[in-house]
Amino acid sequence: MRIALDIMGGDKAPVEIVKGLKLAMTDFPDVSKFLLVGDRQVVVAELKRQDISEHDPRLELLQASQVVNMDDASTAPLRAKKDSSIAVAVGAVKNQNADAVISAGHTGAAVAAMVVLNRMLPDIDRPGIASVFPAPHGPFVMIDIGANVDSKPIHLAQYAIMGELYARMVLKIKTPRVGIISNGEEEGKGNELTRESYQLIKKLPLQFVGNIEGRDLFANKADVVVCDGFVGNAVLKSCEGLAKAIASMLKARLKTTPVRMAGAFLSKNAFVELKEMIDHEEYGGAPLLGVNGICIKAHGSSSAKAIRNAVRVAREMIAHHYNRHLSDNLRQVKWEGLTEKG
Amino acid sequence: MRIALDIMGGDKAPVEIVKGLKLAMTDFPDVSKFLLVGDRQVVVAELKRQDISEHDPRLELLQASQVVNMDDASTAPLRAKKDSSIAVAVGAVKNQNADAVISAGHTGAAVAAMVVLNRMLPDIDRPGIASVFPAPHGPFVMIDIGANVDSKPIHLAQYAIMGELYARMVLKIKTPRVGIISNGEEEGKGNELTRESYQLIKKLPLQFVGNIEGRDLFANKADVVVCDGFVGNAVLKSCEGLAKAIASMLKARLKTTPVRMAGAFLSKNAFVELKEMIDHEEYGGAPLLGVNGICIKAHGSSSAKAIRNAVRVAREMIAHHYNRHLSDNLRQVKWEGLTEKG
Repeated sequence: MRIALDIMGGDKAPVEIVKGLKLAMTDFPDVSKFLLVGDRQVVVAELKRQDISEHDPRLELLQASQVVNMDDASTAPLRAKKDSSIAVAVGAVKNQNADAVISAGHTGAAVAAMVVLNRMLPDIDRPGIASVFPAPHGPFVMIDIGANVDSKPIHLAQYAIMGELYARMVLKIKTPRVGIISNGEEEGKGNELTRESYQLIKKLPLQFVGNIEGRDLFANKADVVVCDGFVGNAVLKSCEGLAKAIASMLKARLKTTPVRMAGAFLSKNAFVELKEMIDHEEYGGAPLLGVNGICIKAHGSSSAKAIRNAVRVAREMIAHHYNRHLSDNLRQVKWEGLTEKG
Repeated sequence: MRIALDIMGGDKAPVEIVKGLKLAMTDFPDVSKFLLVGDRQVVVAELKRQDISEHDPRLELLQASQVVNMDDASTAPLRAKKDSSIAVAVGAVKNQNADAVISAGHTGAAVAAMVVLNRMLPDIDRPGIASVFPAPHGPFVMIDIGANVDSKPIHLAQYAIMGELYARMVLKIKTPRVGIISNGEEEGKGNELTRESYQLIKKLPLQFVGNIEGRDLFANKADVVVCDGFVGNAVLKSCEGLAKAIASMLKARLKTTPVRMAGAFLSKNAFVELKEMIDHEEYGGAPLLGVNGICIKAHGSSSAKAIRNAVRVAREMIAHHYNRHLSDNLRQVKWEGLTEKG
C-alpha cells in the first residue's frame, strides 16, 4: 500500500501531519510507502525535528512548491497552483504512484483536484463526502457534508449506495439502515429534493428506513443518512459548535465553587472518556466518495491522532477495494433514471 | 391583553398546558383574559384537577370538538377539522377576540391555519418560525426553522427583517447582527439560494455580518441567522438530539465508578445550571412571524414552564406592537425586487 500525504495542508501543518505520519508508520506496517508531498525543505526540516530519517525506505519525498490556502478558490490546484501539495498528491494517485491521498487542507480544492484529475467513477454524477458521527449506540455515517451544495435527487440516491457500502466496509455494519434527513418522519414530509429522493432510494436494494429527523440522528435510527451537502455541512458544523459550547458552559459552571471543582476532579475521567467518544479525531477524516481514487479529507484542525486515523481509514478502503465494489454495486442497480448520464 | 391557549395541542396536553396556564396567571397579571380552547369537558376536568376555578373572570372557555393529531395533514384545520382547537384558537385571533394564540400542537397545522385564516402581513410572502438558541455569550435567533422548506432568496431577505426586529424587541439586543447560515464565511460561499440571498440582504438597512458557518453559531458571531426552513429544522433538531446524546453519554460515564459518582454528586449543581442554560423551555416557544396576528408555537414536548414562557413571549410581542413595527419596517424597505408580489 502506498499513501500520499499532503504535508502542507491543515491548520496545524506541517508539525501535526508529520507527527501523525510517525504514529502511522509504527501502527500500520502494511503501508509500504508514504509519499510526503510538500516543499522539500519544509518536509525535511520537520522530519529531522521529529527524529524521522528522510532516508527511511518507507518514505519518499515528492516536491510541491506551492500551498493552497484557505482563501484560495477551489479551482486553485487546477489553475494558479498546479504545483501545490494537494495537486501533486492527487496527481500521485492519478499516476498510480499512490493508492490513496490524505489531506487536511482546503476541502473544495481537494474535491476539485480529485474530480478533474482522477475523474468520477462510471455511473456516479457527483462526489460526496462521508463523515462518521459518534452516537451513544455506535457511530453513523452522514453523506454529503459539503462536496455538493445544490444536489438533485439522483445525487442523493447515489449517496445512499456510496454511504451504505462505506458503512459495511469500514464501520463493519452488516446491514446498514439508510435514511434521508428530513423535517418529519412520514413519507410525504420533506422538501422537494428529499421527497423525490425518497422515491428513488426506496427502489434501491438496500435497507431503507425512510426519513430521519435531526433529533433522531443520535438515537441510531439509521446507520447511514443521506442529505444535500449544504444541509450536511450545516448539521455537522453546528454539532461541532454545540459540543464545544456545551463543554465551555459546563466548564465555567464547574469552576464557580470549590466543592464543584473537587467534584469535577473526582469525575475527571468520565469527561476524558466522553471527549474521546465524541472526538472527531477518532474517526479519521472523511472519505471523498464517488471519485476514481481514494481520497481522505482530514478535518482542517487535525492533529497527529486524526492524521494517523485517516491513514487507518485509507488502508481499510484500499484493502477492501472499496471503489471496485462500489462500481459493482452501481452496475447492478444501473437502471433507467438512476444516473444523470443515463 | 387576551391570549388564546390551545389546551389540546402537544405531547403533554392538556395537563402541562393547564399547569403552564396556572403559572402564567400568577406571573402575568396584565393578561386580562385567557381563552381556553378545547373540548369543554376535558378543559373543565383539567382545571378542576389543578384547583383552578372555571369561573375565574380571567378565564373564558372556547369550545372546540376536534383535535389535530400529529399524523394529520397540515391542512386539517382548514378542511376535515375546522372545529379543532387550533382552528378555533386561530379563529379567535382572526375575530379579534384574542391578541395572540399559543399552541404546542401540530406545527404545520398552526402555520396553515394562521396563513389562511389570518393572512400574511402586506409585503411578506412566506411566514417564518423563529427559534431562540442558547449560547455561551447569550442567545441568538434562527429563522426559519420549518415553516417554509423550499425558500427563495426573497424569503430569506424578509426573514432577515423579521428576525432582526424580533431580536431587538424580545431579546432586547440593541443592534442585532444578522447573518446567513452557509458552508463558508466568504461572500462567494454557499449554495444558489444563500448566494443570491446574500446580495439582497446586504442592501437592507440592518447590520449584516455575512455568512455564518454552523460551528460559529454558538460563538455568537451573529444575533440573528437566517436560513431555509429545511436547513433550520435540521440544525435545530440535530442540536437537540446531540445535547441529549451528550447528556446520556456523560451520565453513563459518570456511573462507572463510585469515585466518579461521588464527584458527580458534588458538582451536581453545575449540571443543573447548565441544563437550565440550554433548556429550550426557557425560551418560551417559537413565534410564527410574517402573519397578520401573533402566534407562538410551543415545542411539542412543552411542559408547564415552556407554556408559561410562551405566554411571556406573546405578551412582549403584543406590548411592543411587533406586527405594526414590522409593517413599518417593511414599508421603508419596499423597493423593486424585495417582495414577490412586487
